[in-house]
Amino acid sequence: MERWNGWGDPDHDVALPAALPGLLLHELGPGTPPQDALLADVLGAAPPPRLPAGDGFSTDALDRVLHARGQSFPDLVALRSGQLGTLPDAVAHPSSAAEVRALLERASAAGAVVVPYGGGTSVVGGISAPPGDAPVLTVDVRRMQQLHALDEHSRLATFGAGVAGPQVEARLRAHGHTLGHYPQSFERSTLGGWVATRSSGQQSLGFGRIEDLFAGGRLEAPAGTLELQPFPASAAGPDLRQAVLGSEGRLGILTDVTVRVRRLPEADVVAGAFLPSWDSAVTVARTLVQDGTPLSMVRLSTPAETAASLLMGGRAGRAMAAALDLRRLGGQRCLLLFGVTGGAGTVRSARRHVTHVVRAAGGVGAGTPIGRSWQRGRFSAPYLRNHLWERGYGVDTVETAAVWSSVPGLVERLEAALHGALEERVHVGTHLSHVYRSGSSVYTTFVFRLCPDPAETLQRWARLKAAALRAIAEGGGTLSHQHGVGLDHRDALPAEKGPLGMAALAALTTAFDPAGLLNPGKLLR
Amino acid sequence: MERWNGWGDPDHDVALPAALPGLLLHELGPGTPPQDALLADVLGAAPPPRLPAGDGFSTDALDRVLHARGQSFPDLVALRSGQLGTLPDAVAHPSSAAEVRALLERASAAGAVVVPYGGGTSVVGGISAPPGDAPVLTVDVRRMQQLHALDEHSRLATFGAGVAGPQVEARLRAHGHTLGHYPQSFERSTLGGWVATRSSGQQSLGFGRIEDLFAGGRLEAPAGTLELQPFPASAAGPDLRQAVLGSEGRLGILTDVTVRVRRLPEADVVAGAFLPSWDSAVTVARTLVQDGTPLSMVRLSTPAETAASLLMGGRAGRAMAAALDLRRLGGQRCLLLFGVTGGAGTVRSARRHVTHVVRAAGGVGAGTPIGRSWQRGRFSAPYLRNHLWERGYGVDTVETAAVWSSVPGLVERLEAALHGALEERVHVGTHLSHVYRSGSSVYTTFVFRLCPDPAETLQRWARLKAAALRAIAEGGGTLSHQHGVGLDHRDALPAEKGPLGMAALAALTTAFDPAGLLNPGKLLR
Repeated sequence: MERWNGWGDPDHDVALPAALPGLLLHELGPGTPPQDALLADVLGAAPPPRLPAGDGFSTDALDRVLHARGQSFPDLVALRSGQLGTLPDAVAHPSSAAEVRALLERASAAGAVVVPYGGGTSVVGGISAPPGDAPVLTVDVRRMQQLHALDEHSRLATFGAGVAGPQVEARLRAHGHTLGHYPQSFERSTLGGWVATRSSGQQSLGFGRIEDLFAGGRLEAPAGTLELQPFPASAAGPDLRQAVLGSEGRLGILTDVTVRVRRLPEADVVAGAFLPSWDSAVTVARTLVQDGTPLSMVRLSTPAETAASLLMGGRAGRAMAAALDLRRLGGQRCLLLFGVTGGAGTVRSARRHVTHVVRAAGGVGAGTPIGRSWQRGRFSAPYLRNHLWERGYGVDTVETAAVWSSVPGLVERLEAALHGALEERVHVGTHLSHVYRSGSSVYTTFVFRLCPDPAETLQRWARLKAAALRAIAEGGGTLSHQHGVGLDHRDALPAEKGPLGMAALAALTTAFDPAGLLNPGKLLR
Repeated sequence: MERWNGWGDPDHDVALPAALPGLLLHELGPGTPPQDALLADVLGAAPPPRLPAGDGFSTDALDRVLHARGQSFPDLVALRSGQLGTLPDAVAHPSSAAEVRALLERASAAGAVVVPYGGGTSVVGGISAPPGDAPVLTVDVRRMQQLHALDEHSRLATFGAGVAGPQVEARLRAHGHTLGHYPQSFERSTLGGWVATRSSGQQSLGFGRIEDLFAGGRLEAPAGTLELQPFPASAAGPDLRQAVLGSEGRLGILTDVTVRVRRLPEADVVAGAFLPSWDSAVTVARTLVQDGTPLSMVRLSTPAETAASLLMGGRAGRAMAAALDLRRLGGQRCLLLFGVTGGAGTVRSARRHVTHVVRAAGGVGAGTPIGRSWQRGRFSAPYLRNHLWERGYGVDTVETAAVWSSVPGLVERLEAALHGALEERVHVGTHLSHVYRSGSSVYTTFVFRLCPDPAETLQRWARLKAAALRAIAEGGGTLSHQHGVGLDHRDALPAEKGPLGMAALAALTTAFDPAGLLNPGKLLR
């Protein structure tokens, strides 16, 4: 059973690193845990649904509450405080494209708006029920989760769009294949959601972003059905797959998704290295991707994040820190994690090359234990959010991407903005999570103290978020590298896309959804 | 001086392979060279321009004739026969984005339509002056050809969109960089044209298609200016670069293009191998791309195209054929050319791996001489078209891409369609020119006899083309892998994109160009 007001299954929890409470107490002062609302009270307070039950509509209060919000910080505040705002009036669980079409027609006839819902893992408010006079139907696509076809010759697999990450991999693995798409939300997020939000997996350097993996599929829209054939490449006009990627439910509901898969690799290794300074570390990350080293991941932490990681690594972390001290990699050391995926020979020669580049930059290798430790915890950060909340701390992340020449300045600007956004201290840590030949993503985590009043907590968060978005825009970053736009980034999108770009997006939504039925208010007004 | 009625510079011509006339005579019978029109007569017959000269408009008859047509087969018939159809009424040669904006406004005020023109190398009618009552302004962007910026750190170069292939490479080479985009039209086609038509270079397996290289830029549209920032990746909604890629001048005029560049490689080698059969050869090509061998090119000829290549290879070709006969690679042998680009170590290990895969499939390596011969002639096929025309033969190509499981059937269907389209014999040869993990492009050349009457020649071509397009659609191929849509493929596009896809494209053009000023009739009606 998933937790109703936060991330994950309480029976399979992830423990807070022992050193973290002390670190935050020291850095931020004591937290004040707010009082959580009880599920029974929230269910009892649910307003009567504005849509009739039956014929595919569930108006069960628990179903409505469980589909009301995603995993953004404002969502968490809403769920914890019990102030959920608008609930969907009904939830539907279609099993086929035909059922989706029928639901769109029924919603339209009832004057309802429709929120497409996959894993419910949006961290930008992408699946919240919109306020307003129109009743809200949330369409949960997770019953569409079959592997419909696997063309092993062409390395193409077609799934129902509601299939979640672990099912994707389990079904492909049974045939010796893998997709290799591992966002942090992997355990719950769905294939259709990955496409709709332009998701990026932790190993996208090797496997590709979802743009590279999404070969085709089927989208049901109010104006009709879009079938995208899985051509390997085409010059037949603009690529409509790219209009669907990032459309965040505004164009239609994906029912089938065809993805490019690979044979399971012989080896999938993550190893670590330490560099003596941020400058040298960024140069190493850039060199590795620009010289074409066949890596599946490069993840580089700033000195502050590196120090915190070692501290939270318990005994192994302390031993590593002591060893690095001895080798004179002191206070400015940066942890580089790199993944190598493929045949044994490729893995060996790529590791050898990384070692060579790291040593030339004055760094030292740290082997695979630190990589295995990262692999074990690769999906666990969202679990920690619950624990921190219960100790009175709020945690959120902001992320962006920029060209290499902007990256160092952007990191500096972004961290300074977060440190300076409140009257009191904020814990900030940054890593480069995805590298490209022309630039890198920047992923920053911030922790701050909660207030007893949820509205005050939200205000604090809003100041932090606004400061971060300003810094990103001024520093040459995109509004989002992997989280999407949703509600939380929507009003900053026009500055990035420009008036003509926004007009183009609006024209697309009108072509697919003339009456504005689908996910109104997300992505663009 | 470029030839006015065909490809290339007559002073730097490429000789017809000695064996080709004999081959065609034997296979197709004698050709009847049609009578060419004289440039002076064509200039004399030019109708008076419907736009006033001056203020950036050239109404010079030669300028108008030189910008009237591209390099499609119907264009060639028009140019050779002197029946050019509509001429542009004026040609403009802007030097800046501001001048482009001013031209758009002036054209709009004059009730003219605007045809964006790069290298004039469209083979699908993409830059023909449209017939109709509206005067036609052709905007030749080639004066915008500077290297505006090179960010060596981020490996990004910004050029004026009218820069031609050789200038791109020369300017980057001066800084130790390369783009690596080599379509067959490389000598004349432009960066902006590559983007507008979703071009693919011969080494796109290594360097990427233009979609992968196009990082950002500036588009001047009637509705405004679109500035695309060169983020390495983004989840901030649909990627508008992808709307511009393949827009074929319908959305606006590209003035600046930022591309992702690389350091010049240490080595850039093309080598050959022969496989014993088409089946084994396709399997080898698929294996090499799916197992991730770091190749920059895979080009695989059918047995018929292989035989013709060896025949046209003169003494070296005959010697090779004799050697292959001795090794019992007989009538079904297929030529595989593969490119390896990068550091010396990568090149060595990739070649070793290809040799291993080829031998395991019963093939033999043929070394680099055959690859060097291909490299020397890599841009020469369009020159041969002139020579064949003058001997009474017409030559054209059709191309597509499909998933691997469809490729063999598609090749068979396409060749059969061309062989059966006329009452007399047609010479047909096919190769796979670009391979991907999920499939391959298919590139088919056909040669047929011209008629004395240009209208009859066009009819023959139209029958061949229609048969080919039908075979492609029925065989699971895309309408075009690298040539684009233009006029010649326009009416087949709705079958591929579907009604909702076409509505989306129409909505985009309306958002950028509400009055339908730009390149009307191309890509979509």
